Amino acid sequence: MELQEIIKEKGRLFMGEEVPDEYLTDPYIEEIPDVYAVALPTRHEEVVELVKFAKEKELTIIARGAGTGVAGAQVPIHGQELIIDVKLMNQIIDLDEETFTLTVEPGVLVGDIHQYVEALGYFYPPDPASKHSSIGGNVATNAGGIRAVKYGVTRDYVREMTVVLPSGEEMTLGSLNIKSSSGYDLLDLFIGSEGTLGITTEIKLRLLPLPEVEQTMLISFEDVFKATEGALAILASGADPSEIELFEKEAVYYAEEHLGYPLQTQLGEAYLLVTLDGNDELELKARINTIIEDVEPLSLEVLSFTDPDEARKAKLIRDNILIGLMEFTQYEMLDEVVPINKFAELIHYTKGLQEKHGLSVLNFGHSGDGNVHTILMRGDLTDEEWQTRRKALLDDLYKKVKELGGLPSAEHGIGTVKKSYLAQMTDDVNLHYMRKIKEVFDPENRLNPGKLF
Amino acid sequence: MELQEIIKEKGRLFMGEEVPDEYLTDPYIEEIPDVYAVALPTRHEEVVELVKFAKEKELTIIARGAGTGVAGAQVPIHGQELIIDVKLMNQIIDLDEETFTLTVEPGVLVGDIHQYVEALGYFYPPDPASKHSSIGGNVATNAGGIRAVKYGVTRDYVREMTVVLPSGEEMTLGSLNIKSSSGYDLLDLFIGSEGTLGITTEIKLRLLPLPEVEQTMLISFEDVFKATEGALAILASGADPSEIELFEKEAVYYAEEHLGYPLQTQLGEAYLLVTLDGNDELELKARINTIIEDVEPLSLEVLSFTDPDEARKAKLIRDNILIGLMEFTQYEMLDEVVPINKFAELIHYTKGLQEKHGLSVLNFGHSGDGNVHTILMRGDLTDEEWQTRRKALLDDLYKKVKELGGLPSAEHGIGTVKKSYLAQMTDDVNLHYMRKIKEVFDPENRLNPGKLF
Repeated sequence: MELQEIIKEKGRLFMGEEVPDEYLTDPYIEEIPDVYAVALPTRHEEVVELVKFAKEKELTIIARGAGTGVAGAQVPIHGQELIIDVKLMNQIIDLDEETFTLTVEPGVLVGDIHQYVEALGYFYPPDPASKHSSIGGNVATNAGGIRAVKYGVTRDYVREMTVVLPSGEEMTLGSLNIKSSSGYDLLDLFIGSEGTLGITTEIKLRLLPLPEVEQTMLISFEDVFKATEGALAILASGADPSEIELFEKEAVYYAEEHLGYPLQTQLGEAYLLVTLDGNDELELKARINTIIEDVEPLSLEVLSFTDPDEARKAKLIRDNILIGLMEFTQYEMLDEVVPINKFAELIHYTKGLQEKHGLSVLNFGHSGDGNVHTILMRGDLTDEEWQTRRKALLDDLYKKVKELGGLPSAEHGIGTVKKSYLAQMTDDVNLHYMRKIKEVFDPENRLNPGKLF
Repeated sequence: MELQEIIKEKGRLFMGEEVPDEYLTDPYIEEIPDVYAVALPTRHEEVVELVKFAKEKELTIIARGAGTGVAGAQVPIHGQELIIDVKLMNQIIDLDEETFTLTVEPGVLVGDIHQYVEALGYFYPPDPASKHSSIGGNVATNAGGIRAVKYGVTRDYVREMTVVLPSGEEMTLGSLNIKSSSGYDLLDLFIGSEGTLGITTEIKLRLLPLPEVEQTMLISFEDVFKATEGALAILASGADPSEIELFEKEAVYYAEEHLGYPLQTQLGEAYLLVTLDGNDELELKARINTIIEDVEPLSLEVLSFTDPDEARKAKLIRDNILIGLMEFTQYEMLDEVVPINKFAELIHYTKGLQEKHGLSVLNFGHSGDGNVHTILMRGDLTDEEWQTRRKALLDDLYKKVKELGGLPSAEHGIGTVKKSYLAQMTDDVNLHYMRKIKEVFDPENRLNPGKLF
């Protein structure tokens, strides 16, 4: 069978010269080789046919969704690969109110899922910054986001999924059952496997009832150590915040410039933006008071926004750090993670690297779960300076992350760009068995080869 | 090296005739063959040596903890196996208050973990009925329990564990990091693998702050369908209960007889025992009121216990159903699970099986997560009648569970006794890849062979 017999519709198949530029450029990967073809299936059966075609022709396959990945997992690196882009498989199939389950195709954007379920009184908690990322990509990277401290990550909300294996076989992982002690957990093995084990064609997500009230606090601290201490105190208080975001004054500057207004507090060098949700106004107030009691001795100022506009303004500052920064410089964003009590130590360490390597860094992140987003800023460095210095800085940084018991990626994935760091930070025995598991599902190394390890 | 050189202390090694009876009897497995030896290591290094010894001597190995498993996973079935009993590895090693992590050896009993952490203001939510089960066994079966509806299962509380592989290699799975997108999730693969992939020698558990207040409600319904409707309404209300236990009047009888007092409501045929926890008395009251509003139209009576003694009495009734039943008859307890909206249908179906197979059944279970405990009662049946009838009933029952999208085991595991049902209820492709994964870690099929599949 030829590709044109599988994907008959024009505009859903691009070969050779016709392949659009979006598939051959990436902000994180410099040189992208030509691909064999790009196919955009609209149904599970087409994905199966495409995988069988690739097997017959001995082509390697890259699964791709919204293309927003920042680790290069969805980018071809070998040449003459078949890209299966599932972005047209973007239907919300069903919301089952009895089992609190949303069935979606992998190309649905996570922002669209939020909108859809919230309008019906439901809640899909994982909230990665990129609302334009696809749910298939979220599952492939086990995406996190700002609400992980209370609600967990994508892994915690996938009940079931259908995958096409490199053999062309179809497999359903997980089930609608809430508990299981019935065989090996293949579902969790596939979540976060970055398209190296199978191609997801349908996902059943677990929903919660939508919380009815929400309130946000902004707390300023002398420095990032005090702010981390504050975050730990909040976690220990039992106040159960849904978000504990930490950012430095230095990072806030870029958002303030971009948005044209100042953050509501200007005291200190580090801030926590804490959000609580619930179903009862009074109870929320009680939890906020618990936090105030516990963090006041550690902090310089505690603002609790009763006006939702003020909360929105503070959140916008946090959300616009990167957008603001973009107007000043090219940058690279990391997503390293350390145990929560090492958060400040890591951020402090990154400061020391600035002078050593002649490269400016900023930090913000999810202090409730130890996930730092360190930003390396290029400034006016030449290509060569930038590459040499960033490489040297990353080597130091990831060495420190390892020493603190951390991992190279909390939520973006390893893809192509963090492969060497994963190898350095993972025990050989673990890497060995990961590779053996890859061989079990993909003995011909057909699916996203050269990614992860 | 000989076994006596690895385990030098008398009383920690039993060979041939010396092997105590507890290792050779089991309520669920009739004939148990002789074993090669039983070794009780006290350190990780001894486990490594024992596994290497078994490899050299080509012995198969069974890991065992408190021995409370009800699926026969910890029972020898082949003859001449080496039992590694970790019950003396029972130290609570560390409670790290900064990362909310408890480090334990696998032989620690789950009841002892509860006691230890609660005295220090922490909370380990998984709460299986058997407080005398070991945490290693809880991890091996992904144990659930009554609080799963709010807090999830054992899987959700294991941050990291150290395992000894059949090769004698040591591997650390997971980490103290809360988020990870850094390679395949080997940790979740090992959780629930019933001792077939590795032997756990250390576990790091995630703790929560201990909730400060708790209240229990008892709600009576006309029948099990109405009670299930009530459970779904409570789940949808956002009231976030920590327990939604369902039991039938028929089952309550045995507990009442055993305890010598009646359940506080005698109306209707089915009951929900609902517990809520939190940190604020008023907020808890508000959530209780939400439940009352939502379930009153569906129910016959709603009791909300402000007196903790009354709550305790109602919970004791629930906890004593099996103990009470024991005085009347031998029984077999199942732990099947179905999607939550199929709970009543399954229970109703089991009733129909009574007449067909001439066997009485009772049901109770965790209606918040679809996990039914169906009890088959032997009564005065002969051995042969009992075996024939229970087998025929189980065949029908598990066929129905499959039809409803369910699984054979929610929390006890497959072990030996549910193997054929797992095979029937699992797609061949899934079983195939589970077996291939087993081969990756255990190519000589040395670890707990013949269990699971």
